[in-house]
Formats: sequence, C-alpha cells, structure tokens
Amino acid sequence: MNTTAAVPEPQPATESVQPTDAPRAVAVARGDGIGPEIMDATLKVLDAAQAGLDYRTVEIGESVYRRGHSAGIEPEAWDTLRETGVFLKAPITTPQGGGVKSLNVTIRKTLGLYANVRPCIAYDPYIPIKHQHLDLVIVRENEEDLYAGIEHRQTDEVYQCLKLITRPGTERIVRYAFEYARRRGRKKVTCLSKDNIMKLTDGLFHKVFDEIAAEFPDIQHEHMIVDIGMARLANAPHLFDVVVTPNLYGDIVSDIAAEISGSVGLAPSANIGEHFAMFEAIHGSAPTIAGQNIANPSGLLLSAVKMLAHLGLGEKATLIHNAWLRTIEQGVHTVDIFGTVHSTRQVGTDEFADAVIERLGELPQSLKQATYASDTIPVTTPARKPAAKKELLGVDVFTHWTDGSPADLAQALMKAQTPDLELVMITNRGVKVWPGGLPETFLTDHWRCRFQHPSGAVIERSAVVKLLDQIDQEGLDFIKTEHLYQFDGERGFSLGQGQ
Amino acid sequence: MNTTAAVPEPQPATESVQPTDAPRAVAVARGDGIGPEIMDATLKVLDAAQAGLDYRTVEIGESVYRRGHSAGIEPEAWDTLRETGVFLKAPITTPQGGGVKSLNVTIRKTLGLYANVRPCIAYDPYIPIKHQHLDLVIVRENEEDLYAGIEHRQTDEVYQCLKLITRPGTERIVRYAFEYARRRGRKKVTCLSKDNIMKLTDGLFHKVFDEIAAEFPDIQHEHMIVDIGMARLANAPHLFDVVVTPNLYGDIVSDIAAEISGSVGLAPSANIGEHFAMFEAIHGSAPTIAGQNIANPSGLLLSAVKMLAHLGLGEKATLIHNAWLRTIEQGVHTVDIFGTVHSTRQVGTDEFADAVIERLGELPQSLKQATYASDTIPVTTPARKPAAKKELLGVDVFTHWTDGSPADLAQALMKAQTPDLELVMITNRGVKVWPGGLPETFLTDHWRCRFQHPSGAVIERSAVVKLLDQIDQEGLDFIKTEHLYQFDGERGFSLGQGQ
Repeated sequence: MNTTAAVPEPQPATESVQPTDAPRAVAVARGDGIGPEIMDATLKVLDAAQAGLDYRTVEIGESVYRRGHSAGIEPEAWDTLRETGVFLKAPITTPQGGGVKSLNVTIRKTLGLYANVRPCIAYDPYIPIKHQHLDLVIVRENEEDLYAGIEHRQTDEVYQCLKLITRPGTERIVRYAFEYARRRGRKKVTCLSKDNIMKLTDGLFHKVFDEIAAEFPDIQHEHMIVDIGMARLANAPHLFDVVVTPNLYGDIVSDIAAEISGSVGLAPSANIGEHFAMFEAIHGSAPTIAGQNIANPSGLLLSAVKMLAHLGLGEKATLIHNAWLRTIEQGVHTVDIFGTVHSTRQVGTDEFADAVIERLGELPQSLKQATYASDTIPVTTPARKPAAKKELLGVDVFTHWTDGSPADLAQALMKAQTPDLELVMITNRGVKVWPGGLPETFLTDHWRCRFQHPSGAVIERSAVVKLLDQIDQEGLDFIKTEHLYQFDGERGFSLGQGQ
Repeated sequence: MNTTAAVPEPQPATESVQPTDAPRAVAVARGDGIGPEIMDATLKVLDAAQAGLDYRTVEIGESVYRRGHSAGIEPEAWDTLRETGVFLKAPITTPQGGGVKSLNVTIRKTLGLYANVRPCIAYDPYIPIKHQHLDLVIVRENEEDLYAGIEHRQTDEVYQCLKLITRPGTERIVRYAFEYARRRGRKKVTCLSKDNIMKLTDGLFHKVFDEIAAEFPDIQHEHMIVDIGMARLANAPHLFDVVVTPNLYGDIVSDIAAEISGSVGLAPSANIGEHFAMFEAIHGSAPTIAGQNIANPSGLLLSAVKMLAHLGLGEKATLIHNAWLRTIEQGVHTVDIFGTVHSTRQVGTDEFADAVIERLGELPQSLKQATYASDTIPVTTPARKPAAKKELLGVDVFTHWTDGSPADLAQALMKAQTPDLELVMITNRGVKVWPGGLPETFLTDHWRCRFQHPSGAVIERSAVVKLLDQIDQEGLDFIKTEHLYQFDGERGFSLGQGQ
C-alpha cells in the first residue's frame, strides 16, 4: 500500500477557530520506545502550568507500521491533525525494510510544513561544550531543493537529480526567518548559499534574501558562501544568531549545530506550515532504555514550550521554560547529563518533571532567561507575481552517444538541424567539447547539445518538436530536453564553459 | 574574451616520460601578494634537500588578468603545464568584476583534475585546537555533481540546477581514495552521501563505494549519511581517517576540517587528474602582509612535499616533511602561529625556511613522523562497461501553467494524450497533486506530468515527439522533458510520492 492511500480524500480546509477561553485542542502522539514516558512527563508539566490544552491522542509508529500502514499513521489520525492544526509528537521507531515510508516526510509533504526550525543552545557550564558559547536558530527550507525526489537515470553512465528552487518557496522561508528574528528578540539573520557556483538557483535564494532583508531594517543580515559559513559555524558558533538556508544545507548545518551544542538530547524542533505545525524532540525513540524511567524528557518538553509560543500562549511558554532552566542550573539532572561539578541530584524521568513543576514561577539566575511574546509568527502565502515576458531562445537536447568523438556527434547532429535551430555547442558534464575542446577532457556517454536560432531570434515551441523529430529520424538517441528562455529580456540559462 | 580562447588548440597528448636521473621538470607560478616570498622560501628548501627538480616558471594572476586574459593565465603557460604535467602554484589575487573567471576552476576543468585531496592535521599542542586530535584526508570529487553548471530558469517561479553523478566519475574518485589509503598508511575510508533521499544519484555513489571497497579488504570502510557524518566530523574529527564524497559535500567538509584543525594557514592541497596534477596551499594571497617577510610558507612547502610524493620522490618528501615537523615542535614559528608556551623563537618567512633546512635529516620527537613510500598513487581511467538493455517506458513532460487546479491541468493534458502515452500522474515540487492530491499542498507554476503506455509497454522515441506535438497543439506550454527508462529491466527513475 502507498502513503497517500492512507490519507482521506480532500476535505474543505478546516477552519480551526475556537473560542479563546476554551481549551485549545492539540494532537499528541505518544510514540515508541521512551516516547510514552517522556510524553507523560511533558503533559504533566503542561497541566501543572495550566496550559489550557485539550489533548487529542493519535496513534503513530511501530505498531501502526506493523498493521500495514506504510507511513506509520492511522488513516483516522489525519482528521485529528487537520482539525487541531497542531501536533506534539513523541519519537517513533521506524521498522527497517521495503515499503516503509518516513512518517515525518509524509506529514511534512502532505501538510506543507515548509519551515524546519531548530533552536540550538549550549547550557555551559552545566553541560560542557568545546566552544565559547552557542545560541542560534536554524531555519531550514523544508520542501524543495534536491529533496523534491525527482531523479532519472539517463544513460548507462549518468544519473541525474533535479534541484528546484522557487521564488515563492524562498520568499516564505526567508520571511519566516526575519519574522522569527523580530518576534523572538534575535538580532541577525545569516543566509547560507553557494551562489558563486549555482548562480541561478542559489543566486535566486540570495537575491530574495536581500530583497526581504530590506523590509526588516531592525534586523542585521549577512550572506555567507555555504562552505565557509558552515566551517565558521562549526568552529565559532557564537558568531551566528538566526541562519536561513535551502533544504540540503539546512539538513547538514542543523545537525552540526545540534552536535556541537552538546545537547542533542535536549533540543526541540518545529515544522511549520500555513495550516499546520508539528513539534518534536530531535532525538530518537531509544528503545534500549525504554520503560526504565531514566530518559530525559527535556527535548519533548522544550518542543511543547515552542508549541505554546506558536499558539500565542507566550506567558505559559515563558513560565515553563524558565522553570526548566532553573532545574538545569540547580543541578537536578537525568542520567544522560549528570556528572559535571554542577550536577547535584540524579533523577528519573518522572522526578525531573516534578522538579520542573516545583520551580514553576522561578527564574534562572545564571542561564539566560526565556521570554516569549504572546504574538505568533505570521505564516504567509506569497502572492503570485505578474508573469514576465517569457521568450524561447533555443533548447538543450541531451543525447546518449558512444560512437565517436565530439566532432562526430556534432556532424551527426548537424544533419538534424532545422532552419530555426542550429547546433551551437556540445558539453560533456558541463565542459565544452565542441566547438573546440581539449584532448584531456574525460568523456561520458551523456552529451548536452545546445541549439539556437542562427540569428539569435525568438522561436516557437513547435520548432523544438520539429528538431526532435529530425534528431529521432537521424537515429540519434535523445534522452531529455531543457528549453532556453529569457524572462523580460534577461537570460534564464547558464552559458557553457567558454560559450 | 573567454576562458577557452586562452587555451591553445588541442595537441596530441604529451607523454612526459623523462630519464629517471635527469631533473624532473615542474611548472611553478609565484603568484600574487605573499606568493613570491613563500615560493622563494619553498624552493630554497627543495633545493637544499636536493629534490632534483627543474622549475619552469609560468605567469599567472593579477597582472595577467589586467592584461585581458580572463582566466588569469598566459596562453603560452598551457604548453608548459602540459609538458611538465605537474604544477606548484602560489596563491593569486583574483580581481573583482565582470568577465573574470576563476583560474582554479579553469585549470581543473580544462585539465580534468578530478580529485581534490586535502590532508588536515592538527599540530597540538604547538597549535592549540578544541578537539581531541585530528589527522584526516578529504578526497573530494572535483568535476561533477551540481558543479557542472547546468542551470535553467523554467517558469516565472522556478529555477533548476542539474546534479549529475556518473559511474566512471564515481569509480575513479572512490578508487583514488582507496589507493591513497593503502599507499599512505591509512586504515579506513568513510563515504559521505545522502542516499536516503537521493536514491539514484547518491545511491550510485554509495553502491560504487561498496563495490570498490570489496577490492581493498586491507582497508576498513564505512558509509555515513552526510548530515550525521559532517556533524560527527565537526565534533569528533579523531573518528575519521580518509573521507571520500561528491563535489558539494566535499567542498563543505574540507572547509570544516581545515577550520577546526586550527591550521588553515599550514594546509596543503592537491588537485589530481589523469595527465596533470596541481599543488597549492589552501590559503589566499594575503596582499596586506605581502613583501614584509612575515608570511608562513608552510602551506606551500607542504604542498611541495605532496608534489614530491606524487612524483615518486618519497624519500625527499619524507626528508623535508620531518624537518618541518621538527621545526614546528622546537617552537620556531612565524608570527601567525607564534604565541603558545611551545613557541621559542619568532622568525620571518626566509628564516623559517633556513630553520627547516638546518633540520633536514632530523626527525620529530613528539609529533608523528612522516613517511612517504616511493610508489605513486595510480590514477586510472575506468573502462567503459558493456551497454545495458535500455528501454523507454514513458516521459515526464514539465509544463508552465497558472490557469487553474491540478484537475484542470490534467483535463487539458488528457486531450493531448496519444494511444502510446497517457497521463498517469502530476506532481508539483515533487508532491503528487493528481490523481488525488490535498488542498493544503502549495502550488507553484511548474508541473511535472508523467506519461506512460496504458499497458506499461515499452515505447519508441517517436511516441514522445508525437505527444509533444499534441501538447503544443493544445496550447500547453511544455518547458522540458525527462525520458523514463529501464536498464536491464531495472527502473531508472524515481516514483512520485504515492505513485
């Protein structure tokens, strides 16, 4: 069975407006392994803080997978998720083996959770770290980039994955990062991209970043090339505040930040979309220590704090977070973080929750106090912009060929030329091999053959169809095409090396 | 003017075989900024060690750019590079502004330097670091992945970059990594990829890694998902030995490793190809301290050591490297690394070279001794494999569309269907939106429309031409295509989410 088969038919979008003083409904899932006990501890703290939530339990995880639901979620659970719009999720155990799909990827894609938000904070000296200090937030784009999952094997030798970066997708993630910075007391947003190499895709990300930064003059902004930026972050994390970056870089940098913070076991995360948000610890279900009342519930508890802030319950979020900070700095530690000179009392999962509850209303004296405003961070849908004047200037036809030199291929392709489209360039793995070319260039069986009008004129789509027909009739194996466009007169394709 | 215009016409490949006792010719470039003085210091050490090299100086860098050569290299220099096959390069200053191309990218692409090799070593306690220890080598694929530079803007909203991973390109880089490990006394090779997401492209890299690892039973091997691997490396670099990885990940991880090693100013690098190799420090030309005899020549000197090893002059490489290690541990330091309790004497660039020369023949007592065997690391061209049976199963036609819902688009496309190719799926940014689909999915103007034969049968290329003709006649704006193939019966394309 497949993932979306588990999803009920589309319903009219549910408006989850509720009376302000009624308990706010949230979906919760107790998960697998240590999930149930850390969820119990978390909800105990929420209740003691009178968070005013109405929990709707959904079933997810190992037992659901075993019953044959390939994404690990009960079909009925989707209704609950849609109705509540907010999901507090304990870790699950994903069975190994064929046909099993990631529950997180399914929820993220199905419900459009475009922002992955990962605060990383060091709690030194209570949890020792190698670095000066660290208190940063990674805002990772969560839907596009190489993770759209569009891959094709095209020849015997060559495999391809599409990296897609969109303007609206970039606008909404960058705007979220700046809104987050403004409403959570952050000073600076750093953008990481590789736009010195990927001038169109990462170039767009950088350009949109600069555009939106201009709307937030109260927040500093900077751009770093991703390799240098990640190296800096790994070695001097105190230089960063909010980081916004495309999906792949965000995946890597959020793991680096968590690891060097020394607090992977304590770190919360949020996945935010227009209609829905999911909150969870970044650690796993740790089945080997399950049921022993020794797990640290902090990752899930701090995720719940972020959920309260997301719901506009800033006062409750502040109350719980400060009690938790006070607990940590007073040395009341679960076994995973017990052991420094600052540890005073080793406690179990349940006792840790009690210790936090005892401190509700207290403030940390040494660690930085938490403060959450009661405003929520706006989640926007970018409006569609007016269409540019798009004109077709040619086509890249990719061929599978092993029968000779680049010049031989050029000769064969020239037989297929039409009056509208003549061969102007051939590249192999991006290196120009015709006209010109060098004997040292290593050649695969995958050739990008660029055709344009002899005068550089704009052509019709039908000219592409005619060219492909000719190429086919010449017996040449074309495997894909990419149209060459200009938008409002601006070239929308990269030139070949040396073109 | 463009890059390749500066490259002379193709010549028959030069065989650089020379009598073994004649001086070995190498190209050297003194570069810009601190380049000339660190090159003088380096060559002084090589000469004192009687390395037996014949230097052929080539001109590169700022003055060459200013004379209008867009890649910063004299046209005549290419002949020298081709004749010698080996290049020791000082850092250059690349002018800012339009039309200027990276000299390194030009040399790498033109001469096929597929392996970027970056040893990173910590010299603690002489140079303090945050980590336990670090002594690893990054072997980065240097030619393919997203760096082929093939980008297209396809719609108002969507930009695309192609990630290409090839079997021969992967075979040669992985094989180089294992040969390097075997011949340089390394124990383990770690592969980093993201094959849990990119199952075809990164999946190929992982698969080839496993295949080649089987040929090297004396070397341990392991694979790590890139985000976890980089986080580990950033926090616990002593767990790594040799790392092999595609271009983009390699770019990032080699910067992380250099930065946390604390010795960016001392690190060498090699770019290796089948016909040619280039050696250089990883630092820049530092124009603000040029001409003052204060720069540290170690990065270039250690690059020269790697060059000697590459030439099979392992004895000379060992002699110089150990003298350098002894110099560092005896506290003879240039100003950039002077200052720990272990620093005993602050010296200039030239005096540092003299200090190394004085110690030729000595061994380090505390730092690990260097040993280079006199065998070179083989650089191979993978043989072309027999072609698989490739069969066409359909086509992904991408359209630019803003006129309605996914169902509206499906209806329009179905009018263009042919008996051979019927519409089976539409996705938007990789999420299936037809048939089925959910109201929460955010829609861009870029749709991937999959067509296959109603019975799943193999089709002819001409069926694709006919379909495109029909789509064009229906007035639908198709912007690119990707053929769907199977190779020896194995599906060569990813399924849509839920397909």
